[in-house]
Amino acid sequence: MKNNENKKEFVKEITNIEEDFAQWYTDIVLKAELADYTAVKGFITIKPYGYAIWENIQKYADDKFKERGVKNLSMPVLIPESLLEKEKEHVEGFAPEVAWVTMGGGEELEERLCIRPTSETIFSTMYSKWLSSWRDLPYLYNQWCNVLRWEKETRPFLRSREFLWQEGHTIHETAEEAKEFTLEILEIYADVIENLLAIPVLKGRKTKTEQFAGAEATYTVETLMHDGRALQGGTSHYFGQNFSKPFDIKFQNREGKEEYAYQTSWGISTRLIGAVIMAHGDNRGLKLPPRVAPIQVVIVPVAAHKEGVKEKAEELYKILQEKYRVELDLREQYSPGYKFNDWEMKGVPVRIEIGPRDIEAGKCVVVRRDTLEKIEVNLNELSEKLNEILEEIQKNMYDICVQRVKDKTTIAHNMDEFVNNLNTNQGYVRAMWCGDAECEDKIHEMTGAKSRCIPFEQEHLGDKCVYCGKPTTKMVVWGRQY
Amino acid sequence: MKNNENKKEFVKEITNIEEDFAQWYTDIVLKAELADYTAVKGFITIKPYGYAIWENIQKYADDKFKERGVKNLSMPVLIPESLLEKEKEHVEGFAPEVAWVTMGGGEELEERLCIRPTSETIFSTMYSKWLSSWRDLPYLYNQWCNVLRWEKETRPFLRSREFLWQEGHTIHETAEEAKEFTLEILEIYADVIENLLAIPVLKGRKTKTEQFAGAEATYTVETLMHDGRALQGGTSHYFGQNFSKPFDIKFQNREGKEEYAYQTSWGISTRLIGAVIMAHGDNRGLKLPPRVAPIQVVIVPVAAHKEGVKEKAEELYKILQEKYRVELDLREQYSPGYKFNDWEMKGVPVRIEIGPRDIEAGKCVVVRRDTLEKIEVNLNELSEKLNEILEEIQKNMYDICVQRVKDKTTIAHNMDEFVNNLNTNQGYVRAMWCGDAECEDKIHEMTGAKSRCIPFEQEHLGDKCVYCGKPTTKMVVWGRQY
Repeated sequence: MKNNENKKEFVKEITNIEEDFAQWYTDIVLKAELADYTAVKGFITIKPYGYAIWENIQKYADDKFKERGVKNLSMPVLIPESLLEKEKEHVEGFAPEVAWVTMGGGEELEERLCIRPTSETIFSTMYSKWLSSWRDLPYLYNQWCNVLRWEKETRPFLRSREFLWQEGHTIHETAEEAKEFTLEILEIYADVIENLLAIPVLKGRKTKTEQFAGAEATYTVETLMHDGRALQGGTSHYFGQNFSKPFDIKFQNREGKEEYAYQTSWGISTRLIGAVIMAHGDNRGLKLPPRVAPIQVVIVPVAAHKEGVKEKAEELYKILQEKYRVELDLREQYSPGYKFNDWEMKGVPVRIEIGPRDIEAGKCVVVRRDTLEKIEVNLNELSEKLNEILEEIQKNMYDICVQRVKDKTTIAHNMDEFVNNLNTNQGYVRAMWCGDAECEDKIHEMTGAKSRCIPFEQEHLGDKCVYCGKPTTKMVVWGRQY
Repeated sequence: MKNNENKKEFVKEITNIEEDFAQWYTDIVLKAELADYTAVKGFITIKPYGYAIWENIQKYADDKFKERGVKNLSMPVLIPESLLEKEKEHVEGFAPEVAWVTMGGGEELEERLCIRPTSETIFSTMYSKWLSSWRDLPYLYNQWCNVLRWEKETRPFLRSREFLWQEGHTIHETAEEAKEFTLEILEIYADVIENLLAIPVLKGRKTKTEQFAGAEATYTVETLMHDGRALQGGTSHYFGQNFSKPFDIKFQNREGKEEYAYQTSWGISTRLIGAVIMAHGDNRGLKLPPRVAPIQVVIVPVAAHKEGVKEKAEELYKILQEKYRVELDLREQYSPGYKFNDWEMKGVPVRIEIGPRDIEAGKCVVVRRDTLEKIEVNLNELSEKLNEILEEIQKNMYDICVQRVKDKTTIAHNMDEFVNNLNTNQGYVRAMWCGDAECEDKIHEMTGAKSRCIPFEQEHLGDKCVYCGKPTTKMVVWGRQY
């Protein structure tokens, strides 16, 4: 009775993950009801189920930020063109992909305003206005908001003209403090992605080519998806005085002298929902780590019309609600089999099946989404046992991703190996690099791979640049990316 | 030692509340560090202290919405002009005050896009796409986001070109269910404003003139400020099928026939921060109700350089932190007197003063921001006692506002009384009205007052319209407004 005998009724078919990963991804986004396309080209709506994942990410990260003393605020969504232009590299990086407001209240504007693609310029302007003494520092501020980047090609969550994110912007008394803070935030990002989303990260510094427009240094946490492509999980930038000088963010230091502040910025976005989909999903659909899942446990009664079944399911629901995010599926228009498939598609970590014979035996069947294993559990032990099972699932999902990184990480001593490794394996290729941007460009041209980062954990793979052969000690991780 | 002997040092002087209320308001906004003006005309930044108030409002309201089954999602910030135009009254109401995006990614757009002033049109488009059967209903969705309205005259929080809000949009199977839901949300708004913000509300229905563009009925919770002017706290709209018809939001009903859905929308915004300022503040600054205060208790050590004082203050801080939102003020550059004034300006409900003699006696002094009363409390009873005091403050602040409404509510049987009452008292004027929009306009011209609402609790004040004398049974509350 508890098998998927009704599977044929289930109409939400998806593309095979091994055959067409891109189409599989789109299928999941739509059929797990995470997001939908809208009447505005390149803009999505994040549907309630997808948004609930984002709310869980927000809650987790926001608590960590606040523990570290970060406070939230809200800055204007529009930035005057003249402000955007104040930092040269920054405007070159962002101006081509912004949306411009030229009319307001029925009149043409004197100066056009762009919708923020990121808010360094507007934070810097306010910081310049507010800051006076070293005693005021540091400013550790953040905002959760929407930003726009007018991308040509878009994909839900991964590359959308509008996305939601948090952008933290801090200023400090010393370069050391600012740099240290940049790395502390990177640790929080690693924590979010590893412990909440069950995806291992590779930490390191971006090469100059890949660095944020206007930054001195960009640090990153990189992740690897099911298909072996990399996805940047979050970045944390150290600006030095690159913004504080053109924006005049000065303070009186401990010696009574004027000094420019040292600045950082850092962000994670709704892209992380895309990472969860692509790191964990399979041919049955989405697979959500319990800690971030909007629904951790779904109860599906079997033969719900029989005496006592619905009541027992409701009783369980009430008990479990105290400890878990639970859903009770009493929809009359669907068979249990349909529901099993539906909740698997939505990636709910654990399904509880309960029918008349289970109730008689004082048991129920717990089905794990990650392994599809079925476990008979005594009803009086259920609440406790679920905790164990959910923790196991969280760990197992993480371990699978760790194994993938191992399997898909290779070393290349020359370009033949480099190309060959990528073509058989995708994944991360580790190779020595001379530090020359030209070599980096050539590698990209030849392989389609970009440098992911210069990992904090270096390894001596050889003494020569994989491309030009010049002597070097720098090891870089490369990969094709989202 | 615990008096404000250092008051002269305190430089943050504010305008007298009775002399120039508007200037007093601006002073509070800036000097309590709630918000600041920006380089973008008409746009503010909500500073961390102000934003923390908003976060507390969000948390409280969001929990109530979720208890009622509402789910959050995210819709695009841009709306194509053709969509905005689909509902005639709606476009007439909003088109004059929108901001238009005409360029994106370096190219002129084929169709200009407005930044959402409100999102009925975009929700309706998606609902039309998603809805198929009565079994799908209701959709109870909400988003917390920014909106733009290109106002000519702006004031922080009260009327800003950008503001933050939540907009709930629901569709239902029947008109009855939708209407009932509209009123349930109004009750949640009343709960937020009365129980969290300590401001009593007047509940009622807006007249047709004052109703939302495109609505069948608009319900409102109105509040009264220190100066006797009214401020609309939140509105909940019933649309009937006004949007579902032009947007084609159809479903198959229980009889198997196609039917248009019944719709609602509802919102509260960062305007509520303005209401808190103007309902409770005084000549010492902001006055925050404990439940919404980002800092409920501030500890100010006196003679902090003396042995054991700082340590004792830190010990108290750790204990109180478990139950309250506490701040310990150890700033070395300011005197205790300066700090007292500073925290009064910021409206922190309770200040704890502790110095060497207090510590010796095992006591401290608790100062209430609402009454300025000083209470000696034994340190071992402090944590418990604070709970009582904070509850008392919350209640007292509410009661003061209730008394204000009583004092400033008058009855007018004719226009002489109407004008006279308003001129002496401002406040709410209760008067009979025939239901004619022309009388409403004339009253506004003569008095500057608009109809606040047709209160749910009606009273028989007479049989004739206060303006034209035509027979009527409808009682309306009027007032000058923010």
